[in-house]
Amino acid sequence: MSLLVVGSVALDTIETPFGRADDALGGSATFFSAAASLFQNVQLVGVIGSDFPRHELDFLERRGVDLSGLVQEPGESFRWSGVYSYDLSARETRETRLGVFADFKPRIPEAFRDAEWVFLGNIDPDLQCEVLDQVRRPRLVACDTMNFWIEGKREALLRLLRRVNLLLVNDAEARELSGEYNLLRAARWIQAHGPELVIVKKGEHGAILFMPEGIFFAPGFPLEEVFDPTGAGDAFAGGFMGYLARCGAVDAEELRRAMIYGSALGSFAVERFGIERLRHLGAAEVNERVRAFREMTAFAQPTPAGVHGVE
Amino acid sequence: MSLLVVGSVALDTIETPFGRADDALGGSATFFSAAASLFQNVQLVGVIGSDFPRHELDFLERRGVDLSGLVQEPGESFRWSGVYSYDLSARETRETRLGVFADFKPRIPEAFRDAEWVFLGNIDPDLQCEVLDQVRRPRLVACDTMNFWIEGKREALLRLLRRVNLLLVNDAEARELSGEYNLLRAARWIQAHGPELVIVKKGEHGAILFMPEGIFFAPGFPLEEVFDPTGAGDAFAGGFMGYLARCGAVDAEELRRAMIYGSALGSFAVERFGIERLRHLGAAEVNERVRAFREMTAFAQPTPAGVHGVE
Repeated sequence: MSLLVVGSVALDTIETPFGRADDALGGSATFFSAAASLFQNVQLVGVIGSDFPRHELDFLERRGVDLSGLVQEPGESFRWSGVYSYDLSARETRETRLGVFADFKPRIPEAFRDAEWVFLGNIDPDLQCEVLDQVRRPRLVACDTMNFWIEGKREALLRLLRRVNLLLVNDAEARELSGEYNLLRAARWIQAHGPELVIVKKGEHGAILFMPEGIFFAPGFPLEEVFDPTGAGDAFAGGFMGYLARCGAVDAEELRRAMIYGSALGSFAVERFGIERLRHLGAAEVNERVRAFREMTAFAQPTPAGVHGVE
Repeated sequence: MSLLVVGSVALDTIETPFGRADDALGGSATFFSAAASLFQNVQLVGVIGSDFPRHELDFLERRGVDLSGLVQEPGESFRWSGVYSYDLSARETRETRLGVFADFKPRIPEAFRDAEWVFLGNIDPDLQCEVLDQVRRPRLVACDTMNFWIEGKREALLRLLRRVNLLLVNDAEARELSGEYNLLRAARWIQAHGPELVIVKKGEHGAILFMPEGIFFAPGFPLEEVFDPTGAGDAFAGGFMGYLARCGAVDAEELRRAMIYGSALGSFAVERFGIERLRHLGAAEVNERVRAFREMTAFAQPTPAGVHGVE
């Protein structure tokens, strides 16, 4: 049931209409692990610089995240700085300083190479491929990507897609990758290029899972206060993959539940700045939110006489 | 179980990226009736001009829509003309010719005044109030409105809201009416000003029902082709109210199902130009789509051990 994540461990400087955080713990592998470790032990592979406040990661280790694949290199850590619009729907990158991440070559420790569940965080698709070269027989490989790779490394990304089972993208990325405006067609295009499963994330509007058997829709959880959308997508992926790894199955029934756990973790992530909400999140709160999702979407099948037989 | 609708019966000229329709049957009362009549007999109150091709409404009569409250006046019928953007997300009104609708004073025939279920289509809120003065003891009053009235007749609209049980608006209207950007707060604001039930429609992103007991979310039905969004909101209202009137109950369980019937009818409405899809819609198709909605949103409650007890 081992769950491997490869991605960034970063320091984020974030400004939203509600405040500002400087050099806060961030990165795709960090958000993913913070979410997934509520379900399952996680093996993390990444790189940090000599300036990284490593004690910030102690809470992950206490939650069963194995950091033996996190290399510390001389130099500066990966830093990202961004500003969100007043309604949090758009963000502008102020600065990206790759630091030691510029030369990152993921090396998977021997003890991690039997991982059954693999999440490839949003990095260069060639590096994502190199990770797959090192794992032996994963049961499910999921990956994330972004417009930067869709535009700049399309061929490498298409090679990668043939080797993954699940692609997680947002609606704009699904459209750009496929050249299809309609999301249903965009998802079919992606499925025809490799991954049998596609999750299209639409932020506050929820997320759609496209399976060979059909579609599952998870709404965005209505929140009165959204502080910081950073990391919501990786928290979603962590909840989704963590749940699957824990239950050890990938049938349609479990995939549906995984979507709800993913949505729950994504909704928690945005309630505080950076990783703060996930850092202090407990199992009872997660289960309570999943119950709330069910309350929000469940309806009893009406009797066949629901509609009368006109025509 | 009588269901009354007051609204426009119009001729629409519509241009979308997929084609054009001239003087096509439209109007809020028309779309509402076409949807609601699949569930329940409907009593329609409205006005048409002497130029109106009345035989166009024959299919409604055959479906049990009582048109004895539809007055024909000398003069031109209400005409609306609009153009949709390439992705159908925005529309521009080219021309509105009110014609006989300019002097419309809804007079509810005696036989309609005991209506239990009332839908006030999007007209001047003062006229909506006049309708309520004429019905005796409705069980559920629902109303629609738009930015034009929110901006131009705010006080009249607020007076009306104190007398209605359910307001249906889109997300932009909910925000404008309440002055709250957050939809959860916007809905609470509206509930505090009268209607205990609020439906916020988000187009392709679905619709949310706010009840005193909680929230219910219906996704937008994923369609590969959307031809014409005109009338989708009124078709939603028709499916919603038609289902409620048919089952004769307004408890939370039936309201949830009504949301799904509303979403189903709204999704059919956009599949063809104007009223065409609703004109030829049958009960079996509606029930099949409701089953598809369930398939798309249902998930089994996970075992309590879904998350392990960290923290």
